[in-house]
Amino acid sequence: MSKNAVVLLSGGLDSATVLAIVRSRGFAAYALSFRYGQRHEAELQAAKTLSTNLGAVEHVVAEIDLRIFGGSALTADVAVPKGRSEAEIGGGIPITYVPARNTIFLSYALAYAEVRGARDIFLGINSLDYSGYPDCRPEYLAAFQQLANLATRSGVEGQGVTLHAPLLQLSKAEIISLGLRLGVDYSITRSCYDPAEDGAACGACDACQLRRAGFQKNGLSDPAPYKIVAA
Amino acid sequence: MSKNAVVLLSGGLDSATVLAIVRSRGFAAYALSFRYGQRHEAELQAAKTLSTNLGAVEHVVAEIDLRIFGGSALTADVAVPKGRSEAEIGGGIPITYVPARNTIFLSYALAYAEVRGARDIFLGINSLDYSGYPDCRPEYLAAFQQLANLATRSGVEGQGVTLHAPLLQLSKAEIISLGLRLGVDYSITRSCYDPAEDGAACGACDACQLRRAGFQKNGLSDPAPYKIVAA
Repeated sequence: MSKNAVVLLSGGLDSATVLAIVRSRGFAAYALSFRYGQRHEAELQAAKTLSTNLGAVEHVVAEIDLRIFGGSALTADVAVPKGRSEAEIGGGIPITYVPARNTIFLSYALAYAEVRGARDIFLGINSLDYSGYPDCRPEYLAAFQQLANLATRSGVEGQGVTLHAPLLQLSKAEIISLGLRLGVDYSITRSCYDPAEDGAACGACDACQLRRAGFQKNGLSDPAPYKIVAA
Repeated sequence: MSKNAVVLLSGGLDSATVLAIVRSRGFAAYALSFRYGQRHEAELQAAKTLSTNLGAVEHVVAEIDLRIFGGSALTADVAVPKGRSEAEIGGGIPITYVPARNTIFLSYALAYAEVRGARDIFLGINSLDYSGYPDCRPEYLAAFQQLANLATRSGVEGQGVTLHAPLLQLSKAEIISLGLRLGVDYSITRSCYDPAEDGAACGACDACQLRRAGFQKNGLSDPAPYKIVAA
Protein backbone atom coordinates (compact mmCIF):
# COMPACT_ATOMS: atom_id res chain seq x y z
CA MET A 1 0.00 0.00 0.00
CA SER A 2 1.41 3.38 -0.92
CA LYS A 3 1.81 6.06 1.69
CA ASN A 4 -0.34 9.16 1.59
CA ALA A 5 1.13 12.63 1.16
CA VAL A 6 -0.48 16.05 1.07
CA VAL A 7 0.86 18.39 -1.64
CA LEU A 8 0.23 22.13 -1.69
CA LEU A 9 -0.59 22.75 -5.34
CA SER A 10 -0.96 26.31 -6.58
CA GLY A 11 -1.05 25.48 -10.26
CA GLY A 12 2.32 27.16 -10.73
CA LEU A 13 5.56 25.73 -12.05
CA ASP A 14 7.09 24.96 -8.67
CA SER A 15 4.22 23.08 -7.06
CA ALA A 16 3.58 21.13 -10.28
CA THR A 17 7.16 19.92 -10.07
CA VAL A 18 6.66 18.97 -6.43
CA LEU A 19 3.59 16.91 -7.30
CA ALA A 20 5.65 15.04 -9.90
CA ILE A 21 8.38 14.43 -7.30
CA VAL A 22 5.84 13.10 -4.81
CA ARG A 23 4.39 10.72 -7.40
CA SER A 24 7.88 9.60 -8.47
CA ARG A 25 8.60 8.67 -4.84
CA GLY A 26 5.57 6.38 -4.81
CA PHE A 27 3.23 8.41 -2.61
CA ALA A 28 -0.52 8.56 -3.08
CA ALA A 29 -0.89 12.32 -3.55
CA TYR A 30 -3.63 14.45 -2.00
CA ALA A 31 -3.45 17.84 -3.68
CA LEU A 32 -4.62 20.95 -1.85
CA SER A 33 -5.26 24.33 -3.48
CA PHE A 34 -6.71 27.55 -2.14
CA ARG A 35 -9.15 30.08 -3.50
CA TYR A 36 -8.01 33.06 -1.44
CA GLY A 37 -9.26 36.12 -3.23
CA GLN A 38 -6.75 35.87 -6.09
CA ARG A 39 -7.60 38.10 -9.00
CA HIS A 40 -7.72 35.15 -11.35
CA GLU A 41 -8.89 31.55 -11.55
CA ALA A 42 -6.33 30.39 -14.11
CA GLU A 43 -4.07 28.96 -11.39
CA LEU A 44 -6.87 26.85 -9.94
CA GLN A 45 -7.84 25.49 -13.35
CA ALA A 46 -4.19 24.59 -13.89
CA ALA A 47 -4.04 22.89 -10.48
CA LYS A 48 -7.06 20.78 -11.34
CA THR A 49 -5.62 19.68 -14.69
CA LEU A 50 -2.21 18.97 -13.15
CA SER A 51 -3.82 16.84 -10.41
CA THR A 52 -5.45 14.67 -13.04
CA ASN A 53 -2.44 14.50 -15.36
CA LEU A 54 0.02 13.68 -12.60
CA GLY A 55 -2.26 11.10 -10.98
CA ALA A 56 -3.26 12.69 -7.68
CA VAL A 57 -5.85 10.67 -5.74
CA GLU A 58 -7.84 13.79 -4.93
CA HIS A 59 -7.76 17.55 -5.45
CA VAL A 60 -9.41 19.70 -2.78
CA VAL A 61 -9.84 23.47 -3.10
CA ALA A 62 -10.20 25.25 0.23
CA GLU A 63 -12.05 28.56 0.14
CA ILE A 64 -10.36 31.13 2.30
CA ASP A 65 -11.04 34.82 1.98
CA LEU A 66 -8.01 36.82 3.08
CA ARG A 67 -9.60 39.98 1.70
CA ILE A 68 -11.43 40.40 5.00
CA PHE A 69 -8.07 41.57 6.38
CA GLY A 70 -6.92 43.62 3.34
CA GLY A 71 -3.41 44.25 2.04
CA SER A 72 -1.46 42.63 -0.87
CA ALA A 73 -1.08 42.79 -4.64
CA LEU A 74 -2.33 39.22 -4.91
CA THR A 75 -5.55 39.90 -3.08
CA ALA A 76 -6.20 43.67 -3.26
CA ASP A 77 -6.17 46.31 -5.94
CA VAL A 78 -2.48 47.22 -5.90
CA ALA A 79 -0.33 47.48 -9.04
CA VAL A 80 1.85 44.42 -9.76
CA PRO A 81 5.46 45.53 -10.40
CA LYS A 82 6.64 44.89 -13.97
CA GLY A 83 9.94 44.60 -15.78
CA ARG A 84 12.21 44.22 -12.75
CA SER A 85 15.56 42.48 -13.12
CA GLU A 86 16.39 39.23 -11.31
CA ALA A 87 18.57 41.25 -8.91
CA GLU A 88 15.77 43.71 -8.14
CA ILE A 89 13.32 40.85 -7.59
CA GLY A 90 15.60 39.38 -4.94
CA GLY A 91 15.64 42.44 -2.64
CA GLY A 92 13.28 42.95 0.31
CA ILE A 93 9.79 41.66 1.01
CA PRO A 94 7.81 41.66 -2.27
CA ILE A 95 4.65 43.72 -2.74
CA THR A 96 2.93 40.41 -3.46
CA TYR A 97 3.57 39.29 0.11
CA VAL A 98 0.33 38.12 1.74
CA PRO A 99 0.38 38.29 5.55
CA ALA A 100 0.76 34.83 7.12
CA ARG A 101 -0.25 33.13 3.89
CA ASN A 102 2.02 30.11 4.12
CA THR A 103 1.11 29.67 7.78
CA ILE A 104 -2.56 29.54 6.84
CA PHE A 105 -1.88 27.20 3.92
CA LEU A 106 0.25 24.85 6.01
CA SER A 107 -2.36 24.84 8.78
CA TYR A 108 -4.94 23.57 6.34
CA ALA A 109 -2.43 21.04 5.01
CA LEU A 110 -1.94 19.82 8.57
CA ALA A 111 -5.69 19.32 9.03
CA TYR A 112 -5.95 17.57 5.66
CA ALA A 113 -2.97 15.32 6.44
CA GLU A 114 -4.48 14.28 9.73
CA VAL A 115 -7.87 13.45 8.23
CA ARG A 116 -6.34 11.43 5.35
CA GLY A 117 -3.73 9.69 7.50
CA ALA A 118 -0.85 11.34 5.63
CA ARG A 119 2.44 11.68 7.48
CA ASP A 120 4.13 13.78 4.82
CA ILE A 121 3.36 17.30 3.57
CA PHE A 122 5.13 18.67 0.51
CA LEU A 123 5.39 22.28 -0.58
CA GLY A 124 7.14 24.01 -3.44
CA ILE A 125 8.99 26.91 -1.85
CA ASN A 126 12.50 27.49 -3.14
CA SER A 127 15.65 29.51 -2.78
CA LEU A 128 14.34 32.39 -4.91
CA ASP A 129 11.27 32.72 -2.72
CA TYR A 130 13.08 32.80 0.54
CA SER A 131 15.16 35.79 -0.42
CA GLY A 132 11.97 37.81 -0.17
CA TYR A 133 9.09 36.14 1.64
CA PRO A 134 9.63 35.68 5.38
CA ASP A 135 7.48 32.54 5.43
CA CYS A 136 9.60 30.78 2.78
CA ARG A 137 12.84 30.63 4.77
CA PRO A 138 14.34 27.37 6.07
CA GLU A 139 14.08 28.59 9.69
CA TYR A 140 10.37 29.26 9.16
CA LEU A 141 9.89 25.71 7.87
CA ALA A 142 11.78 24.30 10.85
CA ALA A 143 9.49 26.22 13.20
CA PHE A 144 6.39 24.92 11.43
CA GLN A 145 7.76 21.38 11.61
CA GLN A 146 8.16 21.81 15.37
CA LEU A 147 4.62 23.16 15.65
CA ALA A 148 3.15 20.38 13.51
CA ASN A 149 4.34 17.70 15.89
CA LEU A 150 2.72 19.45 18.84
CA ALA A 151 -0.50 20.51 17.12
CA THR A 152 -2.24 17.31 16.20
CA ARG A 153 -3.48 13.97 17.43
CA SER A 154 -0.95 12.18 15.23
CA GLY A 155 1.84 14.30 16.68
CA VAL A 156 0.75 13.57 20.25
CA GLU A 157 0.21 9.88 19.60
CA GLY A 158 3.70 9.50 18.25
CA GLN A 159 3.72 9.40 14.45
CA GLY A 160 3.61 13.05 13.50
CA VAL A 161 4.03 14.62 10.10
CA THR A 162 7.12 15.60 8.18
CA LEU A 163 7.32 18.77 6.13
CA HIS A 164 9.22 18.48 2.83
CA ALA A 165 10.41 21.36 0.65
CA PRO A 166 12.28 19.47 -2.09
CA LEU A 167 12.89 22.59 -4.19
CA LEU A 168 14.36 24.65 -1.36
CA GLN A 169 17.94 24.59 -2.63
CA LEU A 170 17.16 24.53 -6.37
CA SER A 171 17.27 27.41 -8.85
CA LYS A 172 14.33 27.95 -11.19
CA ALA A 173 16.36 26.41 -14.03
CA GLU A 174 17.13 23.32 -11.92
CA ILE A 175 13.47 22.95 -10.96
CA ILE A 176 12.43 23.04 -14.61
CA SER A 177 15.12 20.55 -15.57
CA LEU A 178 14.00 18.16 -12.84
CA GLY A 179 10.32 18.52 -13.73
CA LEU A 180 10.95 17.86 -17.40
CA ARG A 181 12.73 14.60 -16.48
CA LEU A 182 9.67 13.66 -14.38
CA GLY A 183 7.25 14.40 -17.21
CA VAL A 184 5.66 17.66 -16.07
CA ASP A 185 3.80 19.41 -18.87
CA TYR A 186 4.71 23.01 -18.08
CA SER A 187 2.36 24.35 -20.75
CA ILE A 188 -0.41 23.73 -18.20
CA THR A 189 1.22 25.56 -15.29
CA ARG A 190 0.43 29.20 -14.46
CA SER A 191 2.75 31.51 -12.53
CA CYS A 192 1.83 35.05 -13.64
CA TYR A 193 0.72 37.59 -11.00
CA ASP A 194 -1.28 39.55 -13.57
CA PRO A 195 -2.64 37.26 -16.30
CA ALA A 196 -5.14 38.12 -19.05
CA GLU A 197 -8.76 36.98 -18.75
CA ASP A 198 -7.95 33.81 -20.68
CA GLY A 199 -5.07 32.99 -18.30
CA ALA A 200 -2.27 34.09 -20.66
CA ALA A 201 0.79 35.35 -18.78
CA CYS A 202 1.84 39.04 -18.83
CA GLY A 203 5.51 38.22 -19.43
CA ALA A 204 6.73 41.14 -17.30
CA CYS A 205 5.86 40.57 -13.63
CA ASP A 206 8.44 39.05 -11.26
CA ALA A 207 7.01 35.55 -11.60
CA CYS A 208 7.03 35.68 -15.41
CA GLN A 209 10.59 37.09 -15.52
CA LEU A 210 11.98 34.37 -13.25
CA ARG A 211 10.13 31.64 -15.08
CA ARG A 212 11.18 32.69 -18.56
CA ALA A 213 14.81 33.03 -17.43
CA GLY A 214 14.59 29.48 -16.02
CA PHE A 215 13.49 28.05 -19.34
CA GLN A 216 16.11 30.09 -21.21
CA LYS A 217 18.87 28.67 -18.99
CA ASN A 218 17.68 25.22 -20.10
CA GLY A 219 17.86 26.35 -23.73
CA LEU A 220 14.07 26.28 -23.98
CA SER A 221 11.12 28.60 -24.43
CA ASP A 222 8.40 28.62 -21.81
CA PRO A 223 5.56 26.55 -23.30
CA ALA A 224 2.86 28.42 -21.33
CA PRO A 225 0.75 30.99 -23.21
CA TYR A 226 1.79 34.67 -23.02
CA LYS A 227 -0.36 37.60 -24.02
CA ILE A 228 2.76 39.50 -25.20
CA VAL A 229 5.25 37.51 -27.24
CA ALA A 230 8.46 37.46 -25.23
CA ALA A 231 11.47 39.09 -26.91
CA MET B 1 -2.85 56.07 21.66
CA SER B 2 -3.90 52.62 22.76
CA LYS B 3 -2.15 49.57 21.38
CA ASN B 4 -4.01 47.18 19.12
CA ALA B 5 -4.61 43.56 20.06
CA VAL B 6 -6.29 40.70 18.20
CA VAL B 7 -8.61 38.55 20.33
CA LEU B 8 -9.89 35.16 19.22
CA LEU B 9 -13.55 35.34 20.23
CA SER B 10 -15.68 32.22 19.96
CA GLY B 11 -18.68 33.58 21.82
CA GLY B 12 -18.02 31.18 24.68
CA LEU B 13 -17.34 31.92 28.33
CA ASP B 14 -13.55 31.75 28.10
CA SER B 15 -12.95 34.04 25.13
CA ALA B 16 -15.51 36.57 26.46
CA THR B 17 -13.44 36.75 29.62
CA VAL B 18 -10.28 37.24 27.56
CA LEU B 19 -11.86 40.12 25.65
CA ALA B 20 -12.72 41.77 28.98
CA ILE B 21 -9.11 41.25 30.16
CA VAL B 22 -7.76 42.81 26.96
CA ARG B 23 -10.01 45.85 27.35
CA SER B 24 -9.09 46.18 31.05
CA ARG B 25 -5.41 46.33 30.02
CA GLY B 26 -6.15 49.30 27.73
CA PHE B 27 -5.82 47.61 24.35
CA ALA B 28 -7.93 48.52 21.33
CA ALA B 29 -9.48 45.09 20.68
CA TYR B 30 -9.90 43.53 17.23
CA ALA B 31 -12.16 40.51 17.70
CA LEU B 32 -11.89 37.56 15.33
CA SER B 33 -14.44 34.75 15.06
CA PHE B 34 -14.75 31.83 12.67
CA ARG B 35 -17.65 30.25 10.86
CA TYR B 36 -16.16 26.81 10.34
CA GLY B 37 -19.04 24.48 9.72
CA GLN B 38 -20.29 24.49 13.29
CA ARG B 39 -23.72 23.03 13.66
CA HIS B 40 -25.06 26.23 15.14
CA GLU B 41 -24.83 30.01 14.77
CA ALA B 42 -25.59 30.85 18.42
CA GLU B 43 -21.89 31.21 19.24
CA LEU B 44 -21.33 33.74 16.46
CA GLN B 45 -24.35 35.79 17.50
CA ALA B 46 -22.97 35.79 21.03
CA ALA B 47 -19.53 36.87 19.76
CA LYS B 48 -21.06 39.79 17.91
CA THR B 49 -23.01 40.97 20.96
CA LEU B 50 -19.99 40.54 23.23
CA SER B 51 -17.81 42.57 20.85
CA THR B 52 -20.24 45.46 21.07
CA ASN B 53 -20.85 45.20 24.81
CA LEU B 54 -17.17 44.94 25.69
CA GLY B 55 -16.14 47.75 23.33
CA ALA B 56 -14.15 45.96 20.62
CA VAL B 57 -13.12 48.27 17.75
CA GLU B 58 -14.13 45.69 15.17
CA HIS B 59 -15.51 42.15 14.91
CA VAL B 60 -14.49 40.13 11.87
CA VAL B 61 -15.92 36.69 11.06
CA ALA B 62 -13.67 34.56 8.86
CA GLU B 63 -15.41 31.90 6.81
CA ILE B 64 -13.47 28.66 6.82
CA ASP B 65 -15.00 25.37 5.83
CA LEU B 66 -13.22 22.52 7.58
CA ARG B 67 -15.93 20.12 6.39
CA ILE B 68 -13.99 19.69 3.15
CA PHE B 69 -11.64 17.49 5.20
CA GLY B 70 -14.27 15.72 7.35
CA GLY B 71 -14.01 14.43 10.88
CA SER B 72 -15.19 15.88 14.25
CA ALA B 73 -18.27 16.21 16.43
CA LEU B 74 -18.18 19.98 16.04
CA THR B 75 -18.26 19.87 12.27
CA ALA B 76 -19.69 16.50 11.22
CA ASP B 77 -22.67 14.37 12.17
CA VAL B 78 -21.19 12.52 15.16
CA ALA B 79 -22.98 12.23 18.52
CA VAL B 80 -21.85 14.68 21.19
CA PRO B 81 -21.08 12.81 24.45
CA LYS B 82 -23.43 13.67 27.30
CA GLY B 83 -23.47 13.37 31.07
CA ARG B 84 -19.76 12.69 31.58
CA SER B 85 -18.16 13.56 34.93
CA GLU B 86 -15.38 16.15 35.23
CA ALA B 87 -12.87 13.29 35.64
CA GLU B 88 -14.11 11.54 32.49
CA ILE B 89 -13.97 14.80 30.55
CA GLY B 90 -10.28 15.22 31.43
CA GLY B 91 -9.09 11.94 29.84
CA GLY B 92 -7.71 11.65 26.30
CA ILE B 93 -8.33 13.64 23.15
CA PRO B 94 -12.02 14.65 23.06
CA ILE B 95 -14.36 13.56 20.29
CA THR B 96 -14.90 17.28 19.66
CA TYR B 97 -11.25 17.63 18.60
CA VAL B 98 -10.98 19.34 15.20
CA PRO B 99 -7.73 18.59 13.34
CA ALA B 100 -5.34 21.54 13.45
CA ARG B 101 -8.13 23.91 14.41
CA ASN B 102 -6.16 26.19 16.71
CA THR B 103 -3.30 26.29 14.20
CA ILE B 104 -5.70 27.49 11.53
CA PHE B 105 -7.32 30.00 13.90
CA LEU B 106 -3.97 31.38 15.05
CA SER B 107 -2.73 31.63 11.46
CA TYR B 108 -5.65 33.87 10.64
CA ALA B 109 -5.03 35.85 13.82
CA LEU B 110 -1.44 36.35 12.69
CA ALA B 111 -2.59 37.73 9.32
CA TYR B 112 -5.15 39.97 11.02
CA ALA B 113 -2.58 41.24 13.53
CA GLU B 114 -0.15 42.11 10.77
CA VAL B 115 -2.74 44.00 8.74
CA ARG B 116 -4.01 45.96 11.76
CA GLY B 117 -0.56 46.62 13.21
CA ALA B 118 -1.32 44.60 16.36
CA ARG B 119 1.65 43.15 18.23
CA ASP B 120 -0.45 41.12 20.66
CA ILE B 121 -2.75 38.15 20.09
CA PHE B 122 -4.94 36.85 22.90
CA LEU B 123 -6.70 33.50 23.09
CA GLY B 124 -8.80 31.82 25.74
CA ILE B 125 -7.37 28.36 26.11
CA ASN B 126 -7.05 27.08 29.67
CA SER B 127 -5.86 24.29 31.90
CA LEU B 128 -8.99 22.20 31.39
CA ASP B 129 -8.59 22.36 27.61
CA TYR B 130 -5.01 21.29 27.53
CA SER B 131 -5.67 18.08 29.36
CA GLY B 132 -7.36 16.92 26.18
CA TYR B 133 -6.66 18.98 23.07
CA PRO B 134 -3.09 18.72 21.75
CA ASP B 135 -3.22 22.26 20.38
CA CYS B 136 -4.11 23.79 23.76
CA ARG B 137 -0.90 22.80 25.59
CA PRO B 138 1.71 25.33 26.74
CA GLU B 139 4.38 23.68 24.55
CA TYR B 140 2.11 24.09 21.53
CA LEU B 141 1.69 27.79 22.28
CA ALA B 142 5.45 28.21 22.68
CA ALA B 143 5.97 26.60 19.26
CA PHE B 144 3.41 28.90 17.67
CA GLN B 145 5.08 31.90 19.30
CA GLN B 146 8.38 30.81 17.73
CA LEU B 147 6.69 30.40 14.34
CA ALA B 148 4.91 33.76 14.56
CA ASN B 149 8.17 35.64 14.82
CA LEU B 150 9.53 33.93 11.71
CA ALA B 151 6.34 34.01 9.63
CA THR B 152 5.60 37.66 9.09
CA ARG B 153 6.96 40.96 7.93
CA SER B 154 6.65 42.38 11.44
CA GLY B 155 8.60 39.42 12.81
CA VAL B 156 11.35 39.83 10.23
CA GLU B 157 11.51 43.59 10.65
CA GLY B 158 12.00 43.28 14.36
CA GLN B 159 8.80 43.93 16.28
CA GLY B 160 6.98 40.65 16.07
CA VAL B 161 3.85 39.54 17.84
CA THR B 162 3.32 38.11 21.30
CA LEU B 163 0.83 35.35 21.99
CA HIS B 164 -1.07 35.64 25.28
CA ALA B 165 -3.16 32.92 26.93
CA PRO B 166 -4.17 34.65 30.16
CA LEU B 167 -6.53 31.83 31.24
CA LEU B 168 -3.99 29.06 30.81
CA GLN B 169 -3.47 28.39 34.51
CA LEU B 170 -7.00 29.22 35.70
CA SER B 171 -9.83 26.84 36.58
CA LYS B 172 -13.28 27.43 35.11
CA ALA B 173 -14.42 28.81 38.49
CA GLU B 174 -11.49 31.23 38.59
CA ILE B 175 -12.17 32.38 35.03
CA ILE B 176 -15.80 33.12 35.91
CA SER B 177 -14.80 34.96 39.07
CA LEU B 178 -12.33 37.11 37.12
CA GLY B 179 -14.81 37.83 34.33
CA LEU B 180 -17.53 38.88 36.78
CA ARG B 181 -15.12 41.38 38.36
CA LEU B 182 -14.41 42.75 34.85
CA GLY B 183 -18.11 43.12 34.05
CA VAL B 184 -18.66 40.21 31.62
CA ASP B 185 -22.36 39.46 31.12
CA TYR B 186 -22.19 35.65 30.98
CA SER B 187 -25.87 35.39 30.06
CA ILE B 188 -24.75 36.31 26.52
CA THR B 189 -22.00 33.70 26.22
CA ARG B 190 -22.58 30.30 24.59
CA SER B 191 -20.48 27.21 25.28
CA CYS B 192 -22.75 24.24 24.51
CA TYR B 193 -21.64 21.69 21.88
CA ASP B 194 -25.25 20.73 21.14
CA PRO B 195 -27.61 23.68 21.64
CA ALA B 196 -31.30 23.93 20.72
CA GLU B 197 -32.35 25.90 17.63
CA ASP B 198 -32.82 29.02 19.75
CA GLY B 199 -29.29 28.69 21.17
CA ALA B 200 -30.35 27.29 24.56
CA ALA B 201 -27.70 25.00 26.08
CA CYS B 202 -28.22 21.23 26.46
CA GLY B 203 -26.90 21.16 30.03
CA ALA B 204 -25.30 17.73 29.58
CA CYS B 205 -22.36 17.95 27.13
CA ASP B 206 -18.81 18.35 28.41
CA ALA B 207 -18.82 22.12 27.87
CA CYS B 208 -22.13 22.56 29.75
CA GLN B 209 -21.00 20.34 32.62
CA LEU B 210 -17.73 22.22 33.12
CA ARG B 211 -19.42 25.58 32.84
CA ARG B 212 -22.22 24.82 35.30
CA ALA B 213 -19.72 23.41 37.81
CA GLY B 214 -17.69 26.64 37.46
CA PHE B 215 -20.68 28.80 38.36
CA GLN B 216 -21.64 26.45 41.23
CA LYS B 217 -18.14 26.78 42.73
CA ASN B 218 -18.75 30.55 42.78
CA GLY B 219 -22.08 29.98 44.55
CA LEU B 220 -23.97 31.05 41.42
CA SER B 221 -26.24 29.66 38.74
CA ASP B 222 -25.20 29.93 35.12
CA PRO B 223 -27.22 32.87 33.72
CA ALA B 224 -27.19 31.47 30.14
CA PRO B 225 -30.42 29.85 28.88
CA TYR B 226 -30.74 26.04 29.15
CA LYS B 227 -33.28 23.93 27.36
CA ILE B 228 -33.39 21.48 30.30
CA VAL B 229 -33.49 23.05 33.76
CA ALA B 230 -30.32 21.93 35.51
CA ALA B 231 -30.87 19.88 38.67
